[in-house]
Amino acid sequence: MKKIYTGKTKDVYELENGNYMLQFKDDMTGENGVFDPGANTVGAHIEGIGRENLRVSVKFFEMLNAAGIKTHYVSADIDNATMEVLPAKPFGKGLEVICRYRAVGSFIRRYGAYIEDGAKLPAYVEMTIKDDDRGDPLITKEGLEVLGIMTGEQFDAIVKATKEITAIVAAEVEKAGAEFYDIKFEFGFNGQEVILIDEIASGNMRAYKDGKTLEPMDLTALLLK
Amino acid sequence: MKKIYTGKTKDVYELENGNYMLQFKDDMTGENGVFDPGANTVGAHIEGIGRENLRVSVKFFEMLNAAGIKTHYVSADIDNATMEVLPAKPFGKGLEVICRYRAVGSFIRRYGAYIEDGAKLPAYVEMTIKDDDRGDPLITKEGLEVLGIMTGEQFDAIVKATKEITAIVAAEVEKAGAEFYDIKFEFGFNGQEVILIDEIASGNMRAYKDGKTLEPMDLTALLLK
Repeated sequence: MKKIYTGKTKDVYELENGNYMLQFKDDMTGENGVFDPGANTVGAHIEGIGRENLRVSVKFFEMLNAAGIKTHYVSADIDNATMEVLPAKPFGKGLEVICRYRAVGSFIRRYGAYIEDGAKLPAYVEMTIKDDDRGDPLITKEGLEVLGIMTGEQFDAIVKATKEITAIVAAEVEKAGAEFYDIKFEFGFNGQEVILIDEIASGNMRAYKDGKTLEPMDLTALLLK
Repeated sequence: MKKIYTGKTKDVYELENGNYMLQFKDDMTGENGVFDPGANTVGAHIEGIGRENLRVSVKFFEMLNAAGIKTHYVSADIDNATMEVLPAKPFGKGLEVICRYRAVGSFIRRYGAYIEDGAKLPAYVEMTIKDDDRGDPLITKEGLEVLGIMTGEQFDAIVKATKEITAIVAAEVEKAGAEFYDIKFEFGFNGQEVILIDEIASGNMRAYKDGKTLEPMDLTALLLK
């Protein structure tokens, strides 16, 4: 089994059957020990969090597959914190797709002159380029096209899938007694269509309860109850 | 005549006939004496530059009107460096519309991982919010819609007009012996349709000659020859 990528929260291995294996690690993104799903650094190491993130991901991937939404998920081994996935090519050098139900985080940092912190948004979708050195810049549909990162049709397909997936995740978060704020995804291309890749864990989303952001471990506990 | 706005390079007065008067000033945007069309500060004061900017603007506005493209331009008084314009409401608290034929400036600062400095772009159009404190953030069509700044139809109309206007300006720049790189515009809504507002001066665009950016005064001299 060949390791082909070392990430902040996951490593990736190549399998002999042509699929890939994600090894979930016990690290979370953040800064100075404070969790931040938008951060580019590892903020905390917490024993067992890899397995917990995998359990949440499996729960959502299975719900999405049942709803007929294509993802890269094949199977999971919770004890070893690994997930087998189908091959899919990420867009460019990696792209984050964000869906926002509330105006918080980088949205407020950009558009705070036009909207109150925490105000409702109608499942607004935006994409940012993964580029730590350049602060993960926002990119438009037209920008993605001129840079050859994706076609306009792929953009539209991702926006549509993102809204469907987010509706399913948000409903689960609300069912668990928290308020859903925003989430980030990664998509890839399997040669025929765009599919959801990476993970869907508590660290990829923001949810509020009793007036404050839920720590990922607390959200995980609510989601797995 | 009532002054209603004091800008970095222009002041605005209300006229009794319902129109407005732009007073072009002898200031250019930039930093530390170096001209930068994307800068939010006044970088240089140059005697007579207001009149020169007005002459360039009038040249282009008259070309656009002849081509049937709607603008706010009514007439100009070159000696007094003033331009009479039709009323039009800017979008939000001000929006810049950029059209790029070459990847330079903030485009390279954002997407330098994907494209070479100076590479050709196919009349790529993007919009940024005028907000000095937040670094004039990029905004997508979807963002403009959810913030209530403009409709999707207005966005499409502005993109179309921007490409037409830029083609006319770029052709003049090339005719004057320089290479056109990029330009920024402002649009407004007259209650019925989107129209080009503000100015079209050398300080709003980047053009290259002999391997370096032309200073606005040099570009103006070429354009008015």
